[in-house]
Amino acid sequence: MDKVDNQIIEGLLKHVSVRSFTSEPLSDEVVKSLVTAAQAASTASFQQSYSIIDVVDDDLREKVTQAARNQRFMNQGGRLFVFCGDLNRNEKMAQELGVDVSQTIEGIDATLVGAIDASLAAQNMVIAAESMGLGVCFIGGIRDNIEEVSELLDIPEHVFPVYGLVIGHPKGKLNDIKPRLPFEAVYHKNQYQNKMDIVKKYDKKTNDYYNDRYGYKTDRSWAKTAVNSLIKLPRSFMKKFLNDHNLSKH
Amino acid sequence: MDKVDNQIIEGLLKHVSVRSFTSEPLSDEVVKSLVTAAQAASTASFQQSYSIIDVVDDDLREKVTQAARNQRFMNQGGRLFVFCGDLNRNEKMAQELGVDVSQTIEGIDATLVGAIDASLAAQNMVIAAESMGLGVCFIGGIRDNIEEVSELLDIPEHVFPVYGLVIGHPKGKLNDIKPRLPFEAVYHKNQYQNKMDIVKKYDKKTNDYYNDRYGYKTDRSWAKTAVNSLIKLPRSFMKKFLNDHNLSKH
Repeated sequence: MDKVDNQIIEGLLKHVSVRSFTSEPLSDEVVKSLVTAAQAASTASFQQSYSIIDVVDDDLREKVTQAARNQRFMNQGGRLFVFCGDLNRNEKMAQELGVDVSQTIEGIDATLVGAIDASLAAQNMVIAAESMGLGVCFIGGIRDNIEEVSELLDIPEHVFPVYGLVIGHPKGKLNDIKPRLPFEAVYHKNQYQNKMDIVKKYDKKTNDYYNDRYGYKTDRSWAKTAVNSLIKLPRSFMKKFLNDHNLSKH
Repeated sequence: MDKVDNQIIEGLLKHVSVRSFTSEPLSDEVVKSLVTAAQAASTASFQQSYSIIDVVDDDLREKVTQAARNQRFMNQGGRLFVFCGDLNRNEKMAQELGVDVSQTIEGIDATLVGAIDASLAAQNMVIAAESMGLGVCFIGGIRDNIEEVSELLDIPEHVFPVYGLVIGHPKGKLNDIKPRLPFEAVYHKNQYQNKMDIVKKYDKKTNDYYNDRYGYKTDRSWAKTAVNSLIKLPRSFMKKFLNDHNLSKH
């Protein structure tokens, strides 16, 4: 029988986002180990369609922080990495071989490949960081001002920022683990099924979690939290941004 | 100083895709452990915008295999999971709250969120599986006939298959670890830089790897491998498919 409760799985199940870091820096050795772990993940057709930008310049990091809804913890300790979907490298290699692949690269599937490759790599980096006792937080907020962030980081065509990832030494008590959707809500057998009955029961559980976390009674159910972010963050400029970078054009 | 060479990172660095499995099945306990590990990953704004379909019916799995360029190992041992970006659940919860979020959900950023959430979860599942001694292989090929796969799996609007993930007990000798792009090629400091000089040197190294793997001299450099798949797999139907599922419409 397979061993289903080993130390690595226990580590995965303990994941919480960390938004408070000590001033202790990450050494270059640690950064190299983190990026190397990220690189070990699978990539679509082994194209390795992603890049990682380590924002170490103080002034630049402050500007990227402000562009990402000014979430202050992004600029207080630890290190800020920006993960990008990168089709530029493939395109340049194709040029070297005298082949034109712009039709593929400028289609929406290639943009998805960039987001997928960046994410498989990023999650490996998260696991590696947490295995060292470091804490992490994804920053989808860099897409809220994606144009500005791209200018700051000198992002060329066929490349787009997917999210930031802050990694540092955790300060203070970690949050409790946030309850996920029940297993049965995300797991389907053979065909996709409507699971809304299960999802609705879960909604109350999340509300209890937030009441405990904040120490007072909230009206913060899962649905309200998720739906609020959908209302607040339509990112309706995304298509134009991608098109301007010669991505997702068809 | 941080410990940069622990057992978990060693495990990440050993990753290779496995395309040959014994007939030993995965127990339901293992599947539950794998999916639970997947769920522990971060998701965008805690929306949990993904679903996992476990294709256990023999006839269905054969049909999905055929649709994915008929890669036979997909249907020989182990288990086939299909990861989907799932905005349908959020949309239904918003309806319950009397809120219309279709403008957000039907924009391209929400499609990216689905691909990202599915991928962070999938990579956690990979790590969990490998920690149990199981082998894995991603199947981007399910997007080659995404319309057919979606019909087979009864995928509703606002949901799209991202890739398959086969997980099983490895049979035979594993491949050697495939050499990744050099650290310096994917890692940028502060701004995106043109790294083509570094990438070109790596190209030869990959050719050596394939010569060793196949036991005869090949013309299979990294660039040729990557560019060939870009030529062969434009997936130019993807935009229409997504639009038909009320995704990536603007």
